[in-house]
Amino acid sequence: MIIVMEENVAEEQIVRVVDRLVNLGFDIHRSTGARYTLLGAVGSRIADMRELELMEGVNKVVRVSSPYKLAARAFKPEGARININGVVIGGEQVVVMAGPGVVESREQMETIAATLSRQGVRVLRGGAFRISSDPYGFQGLGEEGLRLLREVADRHGMLTLSTIFDAAQLPLFARYVDIVQITERDMQNYALLKELAKLGKPVTLRRGASATIEETLMAADFVMRCGNHQVIICERGIKTFETYTRHTLDLSAIPVIKKLSHLPIIVDPSRAMGRRDKVPPMACAAVAAGADGLMIEVHHDPDHALLDGAQSLTLEQFDKLANQLRMIAPAVERKL
Amino acid sequence: MIIVMEENVAEEQIVRVVDRLVNLGFDIHRSTGARYTLLGAVGSRIADMRELELMEGVNKVVRVSSPYKLAARAFKPEGARININGVVIGGEQVVVMAGPGVVESREQMETIAATLSRQGVRVLRGGAFRISSDPYGFQGLGEEGLRLLREVADRHGMLTLSTIFDAAQLPLFARYVDIVQITERDMQNYALLKELAKLGKPVTLRRGASATIEETLMAADFVMRCGNHQVIICERGIKTFETYTRHTLDLSAIPVIKKLSHLPIIVDPSRAMGRRDKVPPMACAAVAAGADGLMIEVHHDPDHALLDGAQSLTLEQFDKLANQLRMIAPAVERKL
Amino acid sequence: MIIVMEENVAEEQIVRVVDRLVNLGFDIHRSTGARYTLLGAVGSRIADMRELELMEGVNKVVRVSSPYKLAARAFKPEGARININGVVIGGEQVVVMAGPGVVESREQMETIAATLSRQGVRVLRGGAFRISSDPYGFQGLGEEGLRLLREVADRHGMLTLSTIFDAAQLPLFARYVDIVQITERDMQNYALLKELAKLGKPVTLRRGASATIEETLMAADFVMRCGNHQVIICERGIKTFETYTRHTLDLSAIPVIKKLSHLPIIVDPSRAMGRRDKVPPMACAAVAAGADGLMIEVHHDPDHALLDGAQSLTLEQFDKLANQLRMIAPAVERKL
Amino acid sequence: MIIVMEENVAEEQIVRVVDRLVNLGFDIHRSTGARYTLLGAVGSRIADMRELELMEGVNKVVRVSSPYKLAARAFKPEGARININGVVIGGEQVVVMAGPGVVESREQMETIAATLSRQGVRVLRGGAFRISSDPYGFQGLGEEGLRLLREVADRHGMLTLSTIFDAAQLPLFARYVDIVQITERDMQNYALLKELAKLGKPVTLRRGASATIEETLMAADFVMRCGNHQVIICERGIKTFETYTRHTLDLSAIPVIKKLSHLPIIVDPSRAMGRRDKVPPMACAAVAAGADGLMIEVHHDPDHALLDGAQSLTLEQFDKLANQLRMIAPAVERKL
Repeated sequence: MIIVMEENVAEEQIVRVVDRLVNLGFDIHRSTGARYTLLGAVGSRIADMRELELMEGVNKVVRVSSPYKLAARAFKPEGARININGVVIGGEQVVVMAGPGVVESREQMETIAATLSRQGVRVLRGGAFRISSDPYGFQGLGEEGLRLLREVADRHGMLTLSTIFDAAQLPLFARYVDIVQITERDMQNYALLKELAKLGKPVTLRRGASATIEETLMAADFVMRCGNHQVIICERGIKTFETYTRHTLDLSAIPVIKKLSHLPIIVDPSRAMGRRDKVPPMACAAVAAGADGLMIEVHHDPDHALLDGAQSLTLEQFDKLANQLRMIAPAVERKL
Repeated sequence: MIIVMEENVAEEQIVRVVDRLVNLGFDIHRSTGARYTLLGAVGSRIADMRELELMEGVNKVVRVSSPYKLAARAFKPEGARININGVVIGGEQVVVMAGPGVVESREQMETIAATLSRQGVRVLRGGAFRISSDPYGFQGLGEEGLRLLREVADRHGMLTLSTIFDAAQLPLFARYVDIVQITERDMQNYALLKELAKLGKPVTLRRGASATIEETLMAADFVMRCGNHQVIICERGIKTFETYTRHTLDLSAIPVIKKLSHLPIIVDPSRAMGRRDKVPPMACAAVAAGADGLMIEVHHDPDHALLDGAQSLTLEQFDKLANQLRMIAPAVERKL
Repeated sequence: MIIVMEENVAEEQIVRVVDRLVNLGFDIHRSTGARYTLLGAVGSRIADMRELELMEGVNKVVRVSSPYKLAARAFKPEGARININGVVIGGEQVVVMAGPGVVESREQMETIAATLSRQGVRVLRGGAFRISSDPYGFQGLGEEGLRLLREVADRHGMLTLSTIFDAAQLPLFARYVDIVQITERDMQNYALLKELAKLGKPVTLRRGASATIEETLMAADFVMRCGNHQVIICERGIKTFETYTRHTLDLSAIPVIKKLSHLPIIVDPSRAMGRRDKVPPMACAAVAAGADGLMIEVHHDPDHALLDGAQSLTLEQFDKLANQLRMIAPAVERKL
Repeated sequence: MIIVMEENVAEEQIVRVVDRLVNLGFDIHRSTGARYTLLGAVGSRIADMRELELMEGVNKVVRVSSPYKLAARAFKPEGARININGVVIGGEQVVVMAGPGVVESREQMETIAATLSRQGVRVLRGGAFRISSDPYGFQGLGEEGLRLLREVADRHGMLTLSTIFDAAQLPLFARYVDIVQITERDMQNYALLKELAKLGKPVTLRRGASATIEETLMAADFVMRCGNHQVIICERGIKTFETYTRHTLDLSAIPVIKKLSHLPIIVDPSRAMGRRDKVPPMACAAVAAGADGLMIEVHHDPDHALLDGAQSLTLEQFDKLANQLRMIAPAVERKL
């Protein structure tokens, strides 16, 4: 932490800042320049920088160290590879995770999984719980949904991925789910993150709609500090002034996070775009930008889907998209 | 809902849209203009507008009815007044809710409450639970904190306000707290909102950092549909490109919400600004813009506060602010 | 335009709105539903919707017709193709426009153009004027810069592209430049757009950092209404809360604009990302998302470039990128 | 400028960075800590920080010095007071600048000015030029408009304020206008700012809809460096995800700019809110937050105004607002 003092600061103001820093347990290096006095504060304590900025004579306080350590690229320069029963996220292969918004029935899951696995998809997604703004809407099949997801996935040699909403659901996820996803709203739900870390399963951490890349990596760091290093970042759109799309998919987060962190990053174009006709271009773009994986909503009959049919690809559309992705991946030294 | 068809739409495309709407249970009024064909769809069902927009020949779909009903001004044109043991929120009086970020000790609460109540403050705030990104940080006093808050408030004839993080804490809030606050992150946590509604106590619903005014009123509407009409909206800043302030306090939300809704709206300048020197100007501005109340963090010794001392006013600063507010309120036909 | 009246509107309020609309020259179709009265207003006049919304009894006013006509997809459903001496923008070929931020010398331009043209680049870009916040900084070579750009481009059979800042520069652009670019700040500079339209040359209209897609298409429409239909949209990043990148490149604008408009859209990843290491991934992503072209800053010696060396690719990097793009384009049925 | 090196940086990487900095003309102070090596670079040159950040081994580059000097509070700690014929902006008095969007006729200006001056308003605003997206719309009265503005203002002992769009209009502004306003779009139009600085008249610099506070102060600094110190900042709303209001008025910019800069800051609630019913609450809030002045659109017959009638207050509304402001100002130790 560097404290930049005002140009015409009084010596006693400097002394007061130094005293405060010392009391907080920091070592101080003072550097007096022609125009500015800088105070370097070194220590392991976390200080509220705002309190220092409020002190008289202080111009600004600059953080030098990274606010995340375990999630930083320096912690694992070669990049993390998360291996789940042979499916490696963060490796050469772009991992496609696909399936319907919610599990509706065994037939639905079978039909969808058959197409997906024929296209080489190794992770089957499907929601079993729904938190809806409509108290009378479909709430998901609950445990039955997770069981169907598991059974169908097993039959096709696939992994399962589903979204958790509440720590009370953890035992079910322990039993049926290989990759646990949390919603963007829970990105900073530290209580849930802490419980999730204990589960010891890979977690997809969705970037909040108003979370910066740094905040997202800090949340990932939190999960890692709690003991779970199997964190997958998921970009799914941020809120901007643009209204045509619900959120603005920030694909530049891919190369940025690749530089800042060793963690894999996947992209969810279905949720970000909200309409199926816009999903394939953004899925292609995500792979071209270097994403480690994709999360795609697919439904065999979107017009009658119980949830988010509008953003689900048909099986034919998914087939076509998979072929496109297969052509694009080698351009960025990946394969599908 | 109005469906605007493309200019050169084919008749069979119109027929397909009409069929779909009829199947969804809507009555259709077709209006054929010189350039556009419009389809008015009337019914009680909620349709996913995106699915209609994906149909061929559809230019756009426009919602006519409001996405919130109970929270709309039309539901209670004269404006809601929430009366809690004689403290009326939404009435002539601007209600100041003040206190420290977290309850630390009886002495702390006594010292702060004494000043506040002398200034006429009738609602004492104080946190008892903390969810922190630092697993080793102060976690709040829990029930002991709520009990201290209650005791001190009672001694000064004040109401209590505290923030809930988890439905498991509801029994404690039922016992000790008069106004239950939820964090901005939980604004759309429907599971928690549903439980909270059952509690039957006034709720301050904080606008999420990336929530539009409409989304905020829809969340309020959800609480009301769940049976609790005592909802207080709280503006506490939205995320924008501006980086000097952590969030941008959107005071224009005050007159806007006053027009759209009958619900009271209060403002939390402490959280939005993050630094105590910026709090009084924004508190004054909020009252001048017509806020029904303020949420202010106050601490007798902010430099040694266990949480957010940087954004807490000193007792002297609060005294000065209260005097300013007392001068401003009459200009907008209110009193403090 | 549809005026949605309040639920409990008085008949005389409806009459007043109808009267006003009639006075403004609109034909009115009144539709009385169970809950809402709708007034459809048809006419060629442009009305300030806000004035109607301010009238008593009006709930909201909804625009039905598109705010842009000539730029809309319906005007040219097959998509515009801008043919400039055989280089077609909007056709099968993805058109790469590349070159340095500013023209510095003949040697510089020759070196860069040689590499670019060997890679099949047909449009050479280079700035000749600079508007800088530093009054003592390099201001560009002016006419000499444009002449060098022209000469070198001619020698390599390339087109020229340069940025105009002021209508006074038009005669120079008429003489030396094939594609005239305007800065994002001038996207809504109607005076300049009007003059530019008279020039009769293709224009790249850069989306402003805070412009919605709709506003961008309205600006394009303005140029077309002024008589110049050769408009190329350029996405170059929008301002969001994310601070790691200067702007957030909105690649979703590509499929969206492709649907809404017939105009070609290109992407400028150099300017959006600001750092050369982030440019190739976003260039690849843009092509994968369906962009009609790219604008790339390239310099043979970026460390000594007079402008924006940090965001300029080296010749080697450009070579590598061109090879990647050549692999990606066929996946979206394009070629480089 | 401080260069923070990566944790495990190689000595030769440090040497290369030092070499580059020395070549750029900087003095270097190297500080080697337990985990980080810091390089302090001192000098008068402006370096492109991005180029340093691209070098291997560099973690980040932090600017220490302020990007604006003349506009900084430290340059004039007591605060600037701009005295224009006895009207002092930045003093005890809150200066209200009011009038119609555009000058339409002598009668219009007389009627409005009579009410305004009776309320103590000393600055009469009125547009004479319009840049419109509608090529057939009203373009303003040009010089005739400025002359009417001047004549009416003189008769009532008022100053004139009008908006300039083009350097070619400068001679007219020199003759008729006391305070020259530039649009938010021209906030970073350095060519126009430079010309304007030569005029030697007070300038109101409107913050761009996507400009940070820092960028706004940098633009003000540019005008000052060009020799004109009479700069008035004007906050008029920033673009956010909120759609109910066209822009979000950022009143927190008032206390922030007051701390960072000595320049006066005024607020334009008419333009920010876009509808007259929302203008008075935000005008009151601006004064309560410490604004040095207000810019208010007023029209005697808004329903027939040629421009922006929807955001113009009636004379009666202005009267009422002025009375409110008179009550609020003393609470913040100002007067109207």
